[in-house]
Amino acid sequence: MVYIAVDLGGTNIRVARCNAEGQILARVGYPTRAEEGVEAVIARIIHAIQEVWPADEPVEAMGVGVPGPLDPHTGVVLTAPNLGWENVPLADRLRDQFHVPCFVGNDANLAALGEWQYGAGRGHKHMVYLTISTGIGGGVITHGVLLEGAHGLGAELGHIVVEAKEGPRCGCGQIGCLEAVASGTAIARMAQEAWARGDPVPWPDPSGVTAKDVAEAAARGDPIAGAIMDRAAFYLGVGIATFWHIFNPTLIILGGGVMKAGDWFLEKIRTYARERAMTLAYVTPIVRTALGDHVGLLGALAYARMRCAQGSPA
Amino acid sequence: MVYIAVDLGGTNIRVARCNAEGQILARVGYPTRAEEGVEAVIARIIHAIQEVWPADEPVEAMGVGVPGPLDPHTGVVLTAPNLGWENVPLADRLRDQFHVPCFVGNDANLAALGEWQYGAGRGHKHMVYLTISTGIGGGVITHGVLLEGAHGLGAELGHIVVEAKEGPRCGCGQIGCLEAVASGTAIARMAQEAWARGDPVPWPDPSGVTAKDVAEAAARGDPIAGAIMDRAAFYLGVGIATFWHIFNPTLIILGGGVMKAGDWFLEKIRTYARERAMTLAYVTPIVRTALGDHVGLLGALAYARMRCAQGSPA
Repeated sequence: MVYIAVDLGGTNIRVARCNAEGQILARVGYPTRAEEGVEAVIARIIHAIQEVWPADEPVEAMGVGVPGPLDPHTGVVLTAPNLGWENVPLADRLRDQFHVPCFVGNDANLAALGEWQYGAGRGHKHMVYLTISTGIGGGVITHGVLLEGAHGLGAELGHIVVEAKEGPRCGCGQIGCLEAVASGTAIARMAQEAWARGDPVPWPDPSGVTAKDVAEAAARGDPIAGAIMDRAAFYLGVGIATFWHIFNPTLIILGGGVMKAGDWFLEKIRTYARERAMTLAYVTPIVRTALGDHVGLLGALAYARMRCAQGSPA
Repeated sequence: MVYIAVDLGGTNIRVARCNAEGQILARVGYPTRAEEGVEAVIARIIHAIQEVWPADEPVEAMGVGVPGPLDPHTGVVLTAPNLGWENVPLADRLRDQFHVPCFVGNDANLAALGEWQYGAGRGHKHMVYLTISTGIGGGVITHGVLLEGAHGLGAELGHIVVEAKEGPRCGCGQIGCLEAVASGTAIARMAQEAWARGDPVPWPDPSGVTAKDVAEAAARGDPIAGAIMDRAAFYLGVGIATFWHIFNPTLIILGGGVMKAGDWFLEKIRTYARERAMTLAYVTPIVRTALGDHVGLLGALAYARMRCAQGSPA
């Protein structure tokens, strides 16, 4: 039995044919080029699926990971700021084309599911996945169930409030979200704030500084960059302690570009999280993702399999 | 089929015989008198159960709600500060006495379950219950599952961190928990802090002021008490927004002594929560508990029924 997995990102479209064991049997990728509009992107997805479609085997289902709020029951993408999409009935479009069930899910939720089925989370019925990059996304498995919430809008772990009164404004419009103090965007903003304060920052032009620049300078021993990364690690630790108290999971998995900073950064996060746990009974391993760049495709595969098993309407 | 429900609190023990429909068929209550020690309290529970035990019907199971961390798999109460208990094998003790399955659960989780099965939460597969009294307890139903976590320590919703850097210290030892800024204890502490600052507080002796005193003064129009209650409502709203983003529930239920403040307090909480939601798609009704003083007994009943249905080892 084979499945089609689609990882639709703001930058790239990745499509694969997979088997249920998590093997990628064929794979293609294209730039998304969202600026060309919804129809052009859907045409590119359809073309990519045709390229990996099996010659002589039935396809059980398709799974699609999308960056933005969507209705998992109808497969309609409500908004996807990175794509400029609004109310796109993606599941219907792909089902009409290929005549197999198609399930559309939030990319971070699907990544959590992929790590649970095929990656670092295997065997854990309670786990929390965080992806820390431009924003902070999350996915939760609790009691062996993917937490999507009543309308598929749950597990927005980057939008727990950790600095309610005086925190910086978040990209979501709210104040003091975890994403506003610990994402890649937040790290870059703190670097610009340090420059604006007149701190001797190690970047000649701080207007274009990225989280990667800050992490590299911190790794080289720059004290200002070190303090910025320390602050992000502190808030990630606080967030993880909150997730320990809410979900009592057996594992925390961290992914995303910001986690490409060295092990010193992961170790800082672990230390802060442990300090903020109510008791040591909550403390669990905090590990990196195991699936790397494949997490999107394997998450989409895992989601298609889960929804098929649930017998949800396609 | 009948069940025995036990609501073991720091002040009172309540025991009832119930049917599966949530009717209380017989009920007794005694002061807990925890200072007399573990054995005296267990003897009192056993005596109370004997009083409501049916004359001529089999008992399907017993459910017991306990205020403190416990292992729901073994029924051992790990610590219960209000009782002075440590590592008490309560389920075993009651099962040895009565020879029916006995399930012990966290009281706030059981209250959520009771509201879900018999109270304000009927029909909601995704709901969050908060009890705001001395501390803040929580219970979550997500995808129709009671969220207990891997070791029964989950849903500690009072211990999400909302003021990570500068928040007050919480009773749990951590900093800036929701409980530290919005519980009855926090409201009383803010009243004492106002007095210490020299504010013209409306209480002659602020050392013994309670959350109830503050709420009453606020209802009478006292501006200092009003500002304190407003601050607590703000943080409860922030917490609810965080739970909306995490669980995407269809209902929030609020109970506990602090909620006995008038509807003006509930309305403030609703306003702050709505302001802090990422989008209106997350906003749901925020209502009071429906079961009142019976929530503990009906929660214990619902828990016994749930565990029986799961076929968990008794």
